[in-house]
Amino acid sequence: MKKRWLSLYVENDTGILAKVSGLFAGKGYNLESLTVGPTQDQTISRMTISLLGDDITFEQIKKQLNRMVGIIKVIDMTGIGIHSRELLLIKVVCSKKEEVEEVFRMAHVYHMIVVEYNGTEILLEGIHRDKQNQRIIDQFKRFKKIEIVRSGSAAVEWKEN
Amino acid sequence: MKKRWLSLYVENDTGILAKVSGLFAGKGYNLESLTVGPTQDQTISRMTISLLGDDITFEQIKKQLNRMVGIIKVIDMTGIGIHSRELLLIKVVCSKKEEVEEVFRMAHVYHMIVVEYNGTEILLEGIHRDKQNQRIIDQFKRFKKIEIVRSGSAAVEWKEN
Repeated sequence: MKKRWLSLYVENDTGILAKVSGLFAGKGYNLESLTVGPTQDQTISRMTISLLGDDITFEQIKKQLNRMVGIIKVIDMTGIGIHSRELLLIKVVCSKKEEVEEVFRMAHVYHMIVVEYNGTEILLEGIHRDKQNQRIIDQFKRFKKIEIVRSGSAAVEWKEN
Repeated sequence: MKKRWLSLYVENDTGILAKVSGLFAGKGYNLESLTVGPTQDQTISRMTISLLGDDITFEQIKKQLNRMVGIIKVIDMTGIGIHSRELLLIKVVCSKKEEVEEVFRMAHVYHMIVVEYNGTEILLEGIHRDKQNQRIIDQFKRFKKIEIVRSGSAAVEWKEN
């Protein structure tokens, strides 16, 4: 089982997300992350999909995606240089002054920006790789009242010189 | 037609994304954005959905989501204070030195961080509201060779004091 990255250019239509996620669900495929957003052309969206799987099923999936109506282009980004990042929001509710101080310290260490603060609640946001976000969340688990919201990974091809 | 925000706590299982997106597709619903990621509990994921729609259909959708197996909690964040942000990646391929200079200037103006640069290609990343990202993309359209990758919006409740 290897980590794979796919980038799909799709028609910006309501049913395409259901069709694509349905294909993976039908295969019982372990989808790690799926994000989608419009491109500079409002009629075309771009999806970033990360998943774990074996070679044979992955090749089948790529073939099926290539045949699917509404999919314009399938780019396999597995094993090529990519820049992948995920948005992470963390809200912490603090009951003591020491907790507030600790959250600010941790924000500094883990490169999270404090975007809101009202004395007891602190809202942090940051961009990291998905694995880094997992590590950051593990650290923030020491606080009892937290809310975690993640966007899933967006990725673009980037070859190192 | 009003902009709506939903936050769903769901079981972290392969089929749930297909089921949720399938429900919206079946209603012909105008889904603006859907993001999903694990919470501090690895067995539970949190989805952020933004959409445009009328009151009646939206109430129906909420009822159906509440009844759906695999959905733990449905939070309607419409009309309450939220902090919503989206990750935006922009890759620009420049053919002239003047273009490089212009991209760096624009990055500064639009609060995009230059994360990679190899002399001709520039990679920018940033966190903004979805509408701001649309405006930024519109500005970057002046360059011929660009790639746009967006994560979709992630949102958390935040009441102003």
